[in-house]
Amino acid sequence: MPTETERCIESLIALFQKYNGKDKNSCQLSKTEFLSFMNTELATIRKNQKDPSVFDCMMNKLDLNSDGHLDSQEFPNLIGGLAIACHESFLQTSKKNI
Amino acid sequence: MPTETERCIESLIALFQKYNGKDKNSCQLSKTEFLSFMNTELATIRKNQKDPSVFDCMMNKLDLNSDGHLDSQEFPNLIGGLAIACHESFLQTSKKNI
Repeated sequence: MPTETERCIESLIALFQKYNGKDKNSCQLSKTEFLSFMNTELATIRKNQKDPSVFDCMMNKLDLNSDGHLDSQEFPNLIGGLAIACHESFLQTSKKNI
Repeated sequence: MPTETERCIESLIALFQKYNGKDKNSCQLSKTEFLSFMNTELATIRKNQKDPSVFDCMMNKLDLNSDGHLDSQEFPNLIGGLAIACHESFLQTSKKNI
């Protein structure tokens, strides 16, 4: 049986492989593929965000080598960044409730 | 039902919360807690690596602000880094088999 961490690593790789390569560049997520990922996997965030420039901004921040795509080195930062944001929001809510 | 990505984000937070704070510093993983995480969650990597200095090196690389602990901003890079390493190893094996 895989551990929770092993499952998480497996999911990260599977997610990257699922959404990349539908455009001509395999092993990279284009902006269209990034938005398709956000629409399907994080639909609540996508729907609640009325300003579409936020997703351009996210893509630009994640695209460390500024080639217009997210590669396998850049993609995990998206999930990590969202986990950090969720954890910080949880801590702030906990503090308010004390 | 949460999506695969939402489950992955949830796991990252749960893992960080599970292993931090057993020492005096909560919300941070000490080196002992990091090794406990590696022993339990990634036992195969830990057992197969005969050189213990590799884990000092990993901890130092992840500890971006060099405070001797991994905080909630630094921890996701561990999982992300392992996913990148696994994906690259998978690609290299695939190339060899073509």
